[in-house]
Amino acid sequence: MRIAFDIMGGDNAPAAIIEGVLALAGSSPQDELIMVGLPEAVAQESALPANVRFVSCGSVMAMDEDVRNLLKKKDSSIWVATDLVKKGEADAIISAGSTGAQMTAATLLLSRLKGCERPAIATVLPTQEGGKLLLDAGANADCSAQMLVSFAKMGAVYAEQLLDLPNPRVALLSNGTEEHKGNKLTIEAHALLKEAGLNFIGNKEGRDILKGGYDVMVCDGMSGNIAIKSMEGAILVLMGMLKKELTSSLKTKLGAMLVKNGLSRMKKTFSQDNNSGAPLLGVKGISIVCHGNSDAKGIVSASQLAKKCFEHDFVNKLATAL
Amino acid sequence: MRIAFDIMGGDNAPAAIIEGVLALAGSSPQDELIMVGLPEAVAQESALPANVRFVSCGSVMAMDEDVRNLLKKKDSSIWVATDLVKKGEADAIISAGSTGAQMTAATLLLSRLKGCERPAIATVLPTQEGGKLLLDAGANADCSAQMLVSFAKMGAVYAEQLLDLPNPRVALLSNGTEEHKGNKLTIEAHALLKEAGLNFIGNKEGRDILKGGYDVMVCDGMSGNIAIKSMEGAILVLMGMLKKELTSSLKTKLGAMLVKNGLSRMKKTFSQDNNSGAPLLGVKGISIVCHGNSDAKGIVSASQLAKKCFEHDFVNKLATAL
Repeated sequence: MRIAFDIMGGDNAPAAIIEGVLALAGSSPQDELIMVGLPEAVAQESALPANVRFVSCGSVMAMDEDVRNLLKKKDSSIWVATDLVKKGEADAIISAGSTGAQMTAATLLLSRLKGCERPAIATVLPTQEGGKLLLDAGANADCSAQMLVSFAKMGAVYAEQLLDLPNPRVALLSNGTEEHKGNKLTIEAHALLKEAGLNFIGNKEGRDILKGGYDVMVCDGMSGNIAIKSMEGAILVLMGMLKKELTSSLKTKLGAMLVKNGLSRMKKTFSQDNNSGAPLLGVKGISIVCHGNSDAKGIVSASQLAKKCFEHDFVNKLATAL
Repeated sequence: MRIAFDIMGGDNAPAAIIEGVLALAGSSPQDELIMVGLPEAVAQESALPANVRFVSCGSVMAMDEDVRNLLKKKDSSIWVATDLVKKGEADAIISAGSTGAQMTAATLLLSRLKGCERPAIATVLPTQEGGKLLLDAGANADCSAQMLVSFAKMGAVYAEQLLDLPNPRVALLSNGTEEHKGNKLTIEAHALLKEAGLNFIGNKEGRDILKGGYDVMVCDGMSGNIAIKSMEGAILVLMGMLKKELTSSLKTKLGAMLVKNGLSRMKKTFSQDNNSGAPLLGVKGISIVCHGNSDAKGIVSASQLAKKCFEHDFVNKLATAL
């Protein structure tokens, strides 16, 4: 498999991305890895491994840059890397840079699958019942009910193919479990989802997201963003309070020592390492979106996800489902 | 002060509500407390205290009953209790029943303040910086940008008058801190809020909700519901994991004993006791919404909130701000 990496994108770029690619080069000698970046980014690298190739770009889309600038920056790392997939020189593109820029590059260069008005991003959440899918995790702030149906269909393929969840239970994120609860969007989407030929189990609420009882949770990108970030924030605050309480006295410090392993396990469950990449759903190609603060390990697991998508003929299966 | 209680509303009604009213009757002999309920609800009560009066109703709005039924149930406890405020026989109404029914009764009987298209519910959140306000917490699933501005104005009065937060910092819940981030609703609301004469500090994200850095967080009721329930769910899951880890072996059980006090403090911070009532904002009267699972203690603190609203001439201050 041939994977293109946008080595300029992300909070820890280019160092962490390059580190990830080089780690991968050693463990996957059969793969061709293409690093796309500014020449100065690799200036300090000695000779690259045989299965790593460097492609030069002329600019970088900043993390919070207005995506409309992308059309003026067709020499940017994300554009050049995505273009390699379009030209058939790579089978997948991976980036930890601006999600908006990555999505726009994928939409414009790779084009959308038929039946998918806008690509979506799905995220795997560490629920009490294991990894479950939520989408849209933030790509589309404004959605139509039809878009939510296309997300549900793509999410079901994702859950089945990449998470090994057969006949996935699809739920709709709303403000109440009853069918009549919701806003205009979710009430309309609920009616459409019932007729969509999916294993639709109805509405779920925010408090169900980490609890489970579903396989795919569908929502608009604004709700998805708010839900995920609210939970992240709550967990951070709680873990912070816990740390403070556990170090407040000699007695609690001693107690903390005794429960340390359990706390590490908890922390690991919610750490981003477990969730370091998501394929853009709805474009004709594999484009893996990584968290902005991805480290080398995150890049390696994103590559594993890209491989899984490639081997499962994921994009064609999405096309069929739509 | 005269307070009407819908003793039929809530998961623990009528027992918990009656218990709360009777506790209050002893501690606040100067107040007149009016219990509105079905006759059978108080059949087992011996003589009521001198400052408690019973008003009979003929029906009850169920927790998840379609609010449209309210117009056919003008003998329901929530309607009769709210009507006491309208008729000038009570200064406030308190209910732990269906929020939708309470809001509809208040809107129809007490009518809306000028400049407030729809009443909102604000909730006090236990942030790292103390209690901060979020509204709308779920009353209005679909909102216009103008509605968010009216929520912001009312929330600012709430923060100043009831939470003692002078010149409150008003933030808008969105999917990014930058002005251009958001959906159509928040982008339009952001522009209006800048011109609204408030101490508007811009967008905040879900992860800021429990962190703080604001006094009033404004959002549509769907986003508010999703954010609050997602955080509640995350905290429940985390506390559950913590409990499991702490009781997994003799060693951790010993550790847990040493850190017990700290954990209780944490749990208390997030428990609902701290947050057992919220005034409906935007109606011409005091209508306190309680959590559905309120206990007697919750009813007592809701009454204290009603008193604070009454003493601060809260409703007139809201009217002025709008």
